[in-house]
Amino acid sequence: MHTSVIMENIYRERIERLRGLMRSRNWDAVLITGGDPHSSEYPAERWKQVQWLSGFTGEAGDLVITLDHAGLWTDTRYFIQAVRQLEGTGVELHKTRVPEQVLIPEWLGEQFGSDGIIAVDGLCTGLDFARSLPGTVVGVSDILSLMWTDRPGIPCTPVFTVQTGETRASKLAWLRAFLRDRRCDGMLVTALDDIAWLLNVRAADIEYNPLVISYLLVTGDNAEWYVAKEGEDDPETSATMSIMESEGVTVLPYAEIEQNLPGFAGRLFVDPGTLNWSLYEALVTGGVSLLEGASPIGLRKAVKNDFEIAGMKEIHVRDGLAVERFLYWLEKSVQSGREISEWDAAVKLGRLRSEIPEYMGDSFETISAYGPAAALPHYVTPRGNAPVLREQGLYLCDSGGQYRCGTTDITRTVPLGECSELEREDYTLVLKGHIALAMAVFPAGTAGCQIDALAREPLWRNLRNFGHGTGHGIGYFLGVHEGPQDIRQNFNAVPLLPGMITSDEPGIYREGMHGVRHENLLLCVDAGTSEFGSWRAFETLTLCHFDTSAVVAGLLSDDERKWLNAYNERVCSVLGGLLPTEEREWLYSKTRPI
Amino acid sequence: MHTSVIMENIYRERIERLRGLMRSRNWDAVLITGGDPHSSEYPAERWKQVQWLSGFTGEAGDLVITLDHAGLWTDTRYFIQAVRQLEGTGVELHKTRVPEQVLIPEWLGEQFGSDGIIAVDGLCTGLDFARSLPGTVVGVSDILSLMWTDRPGIPCTPVFTVQTGETRASKLAWLRAFLRDRRCDGMLVTALDDIAWLLNVRAADIEYNPLVISYLLVTGDNAEWYVAKEGEDDPETSATMSIMESEGVTVLPYAEIEQNLPGFAGRLFVDPGTLNWSLYEALVTGGVSLLEGASPIGLRKAVKNDFEIAGMKEIHVRDGLAVERFLYWLEKSVQSGREISEWDAAVKLGRLRSEIPEYMGDSFETISAYGPAAALPHYVTPRGNAPVLREQGLYLCDSGGQYRCGTTDITRTVPLGECSELEREDYTLVLKGHIALAMAVFPAGTAGCQIDALAREPLWRNLRNFGHGTGHGIGYFLGVHEGPQDIRQNFNAVPLLPGMITSDEPGIYREGMHGVRHENLLLCVDAGTSEFGSWRAFETLTLCHFDTSAVVAGLLSDDERKWLNAYNERVCSVLGGLLPTEEREWLYSKTRPI
Repeated sequence: MHTSVIMENIYRERIERLRGLMRSRNWDAVLITGGDPHSSEYPAERWKQVQWLSGFTGEAGDLVITLDHAGLWTDTRYFIQAVRQLEGTGVELHKTRVPEQVLIPEWLGEQFGSDGIIAVDGLCTGLDFARSLPGTVVGVSDILSLMWTDRPGIPCTPVFTVQTGETRASKLAWLRAFLRDRRCDGMLVTALDDIAWLLNVRAADIEYNPLVISYLLVTGDNAEWYVAKEGEDDPETSATMSIMESEGVTVLPYAEIEQNLPGFAGRLFVDPGTLNWSLYEALVTGGVSLLEGASPIGLRKAVKNDFEIAGMKEIHVRDGLAVERFLYWLEKSVQSGREISEWDAAVKLGRLRSEIPEYMGDSFETISAYGPAAALPHYVTPRGNAPVLREQGLYLCDSGGQYRCGTTDITRTVPLGECSELEREDYTLVLKGHIALAMAVFPAGTAGCQIDALAREPLWRNLRNFGHGTGHGIGYFLGVHEGPQDIRQNFNAVPLLPGMITSDEPGIYREGMHGVRHENLLLCVDAGTSEFGSWRAFETLTLCHFDTSAVVAGLLSDDERKWLNAYNERVCSVLGGLLPTEEREWLYSKTRPI
Repeated sequence: MHTSVIMENIYRERIERLRGLMRSRNWDAVLITGGDPHSSEYPAERWKQVQWLSGFTGEAGDLVITLDHAGLWTDTRYFIQAVRQLEGTGVELHKTRVPEQVLIPEWLGEQFGSDGIIAVDGLCTGLDFARSLPGTVVGVSDILSLMWTDRPGIPCTPVFTVQTGETRASKLAWLRAFLRDRRCDGMLVTALDDIAWLLNVRAADIEYNPLVISYLLVTGDNAEWYVAKEGEDDPETSATMSIMESEGVTVLPYAEIEQNLPGFAGRLFVDPGTLNWSLYEALVTGGVSLLEGASPIGLRKAVKNDFEIAGMKEIHVRDGLAVERFLYWLEKSVQSGREISEWDAAVKLGRLRSEIPEYMGDSFETISAYGPAAALPHYVTPRGNAPVLREQGLYLCDSGGQYRCGTTDITRTVPLGECSELEREDYTLVLKGHIALAMAVFPAGTAGCQIDALAREPLWRNLRNFGHGTGHGIGYFLGVHEGPQDIRQNFNAVPLLPGMITSDEPGIYREGMHGVRHENLLLCVDAGTSEFGSWRAFETLTLCHFDTSAVVAGLLSDDERKWLNAYNERVCSVLGGLLPTEEREWLYSKTRPI
């Protein structure tokens, strides 16, 4: 997207209007975060305030406006995009995740010391972040609504119940026991995926994320669900609400939370990581006694139960079939000389997934990237004039689906024809890293950061590396990124527990040349005990062959070659019989052992 | 050592006398730590207060005495020893480093809430630890001296200067620049190895640790060295002191620090990790302005300069020759049927080291352990009736020397004859782990905990593991354990920097059967740059062959086999020519490629 001069002026004008407001209220600075009232990773359109004010569309970025400065803070992934999108707007880029970074609290401290008056959008600023700011913090809910007249409303898509192997009554009972242990009378659940998990509900309020914008106040004998569903006349929604009411969940309008909270009697558990500043102020005003801590729901949600694991395994068969059919179509199309663009390929894959009965949408925007595009850390395939795939080099496709019985996330790097020596080497080294993690066995209690090096070591030995994490957790028909565990260099003490599902996606990216990433989802499983303790290992859930034509066989160890052949054979034996004859025979040929 | 009934009663009586003191002073509890006034890892005899009061001789342990309870807190390494040594003394074992641990601050809180009066030996309790205690902390210097009438004095061994490639003037100038940056007027250096490094001095005040018991107060234009050397008439000590004085270091009696400190004018930098409670109280009483932080000396000391690296390399040739001659003697003796005990072997190795001109003593007590003894986490070879080595199974020897130009630490596990399949497998898997770390290449900035898994992965895959760290830092003619870097599972963010020397010592221990450990020292080196950043790798310093006769060749990868052959060949080519004919030919035969 190129920022036109017209748009540049619009952003300049919006910022000036905000400054007018600042002068009238005597604010030194206004902070507009890229977040929503629930600290969601991906906010709905209503909360894309950073974009409305500056034109920056990256998924992570916060704005600070003072009377003589406007700055966007964003991380390495978005530097190039930010420079392009901010051109002419007067907004300056402040880089984060670089050694010389000056983060917003520090920067504000440098500007105003401890005397500044900092206005924040109280709804979209988390408690932890607000507390880190110097000076006086003034929280204003929906600060931009004063000038953003055509601002989208709070999303309100149909709500439905999902089967998850555990009733909401059972989940609520577990949470209530947790609260009793901590002598709390209730918990304000603020993270949207926590709420969706706890109530077994889903909707489509946020693109790619099957969530319901809402708050949930759980007490000893009741649960108040604050959700913008008053006007909803969708039958499934009404049915869901009725069942909820019959099960002791009171459904209340979303906006009423701020009025009702201050009247809460007793001690309330809140998670300062996802509680917003406005609600916190309401609680403090009401004199509510608070116990702050990390929501216990995250860890329990991450450990999938047998029903969820069965669902994930089942959907990976169907998802795998869709991706295999896509790869077959891709190879045949490219070899026959058809003009297939990156965009066409993404559309084709989406169509194949949408034929699966349980399909509810994609789990994120498909990255369909050919050649040098695959090396860009945050490539967005253009709808028009996307590069055309040729019978040569590497094509990278990172995609996933949301299904009623699970969520998928898979990356395949596909040799479309002849590959350079370097492409083949990178392809093989990344595969070695992927296999090393997939084969890992480790003691109970091990955290992801303690085994991350296994996936990197084959790359490191060749002085190659990648700048992102090796693995992220994934939800059960929930967010494609889900904590609390991960597999990356950053210290994160959460152990990998049996039932957790985490991606395994090392890569190598060479600017202007090519990108390689191989991604499967891994289920952590019990691997028995020995006199040295209890052990954990991984079981690969994703079912889709790795193309062996780009593999430099001499770089693989015996164990790695055996793993690769066994995996491809398993893919072929599970999926082969479910494919039409031509595609089946193609898969047989693609999965021949090397 | 078995605690006799007489000794049991002595400990009971000592504790009762302490309780008498407690009653007269109205103390609820007395804390006696295993530390010294400088938070040294190994305290001198004077500060073995835990041993004097309870008979426990383990290297880590703290005592808490209340009117109706006496408890020793120690970690997994010492459980067996503690149970044996505390029997009959009335002192109960409190286990640490176990999931159910209740540490001293928590335990005291449970006993007395926040109302307790806790007396501590103010000299031997670090500031960080004292602050973690609940209730009122009363610091008493040398609390036990009131009843420990024949208590050893402060050690006072000859002091001498060492060459380290950097003058003390240069080191002091660097420290003063650090202090200026932090707007401090001085620093109280409390850790003994920090002082020894900074002043280029050594002594033998602590067994195996060439340190001088002292404090150092560095200011902008002076340095006051508080050291118990008044009565020392050793010529080298006098000469050292004279040179120090001429270089602006004022030598003062050790005991005067407590009187002088409160008068310090300006802002003083102190490290709460090694500053003791008594000196802290003296500073607070004097109203001295403090800046607390980690001593910057640790990190700089850990990065060896070219002179130190050259010294370490040189001494590893001589140390390696001694160990090779020991291994030759061992093999021939055992094969000829001589009755060699574990103790005899340790003595022989010590004698061979002592023939090296630069030898100053061992760097720790040699672990000489045959068969099942090698599986004990903290085996002390008995002087009398030590097990005799037979022509069968594995013998483990972990030893090291202190030299004027470096410190060594090496473990070899030696097949003395026929080995079981399990012994050979363990031997080989540990070797694979050792090699994986020795061959590692990793990005600049990587910390030890981020690569620890590389050494464990070959063991993990076979459901085997070891319960200690993989690597510790080592000093240059200083402590054999030196921070701040290490290579272990615990999160420690200190990166491995070029010039740091760290051990590589994975192991496998099977109770009642055998133990295997392979240890070399690794120098971290620059491994160049690529488009993916800067790289680090290791260079092995230790020179002593690994016996290939216990290796299961089929378990080694090609790369591992090549590494092993190349290492043994290097050992042979460097050391061979320096050995007598018979030993040289033996080494040739021991290092034949496999």
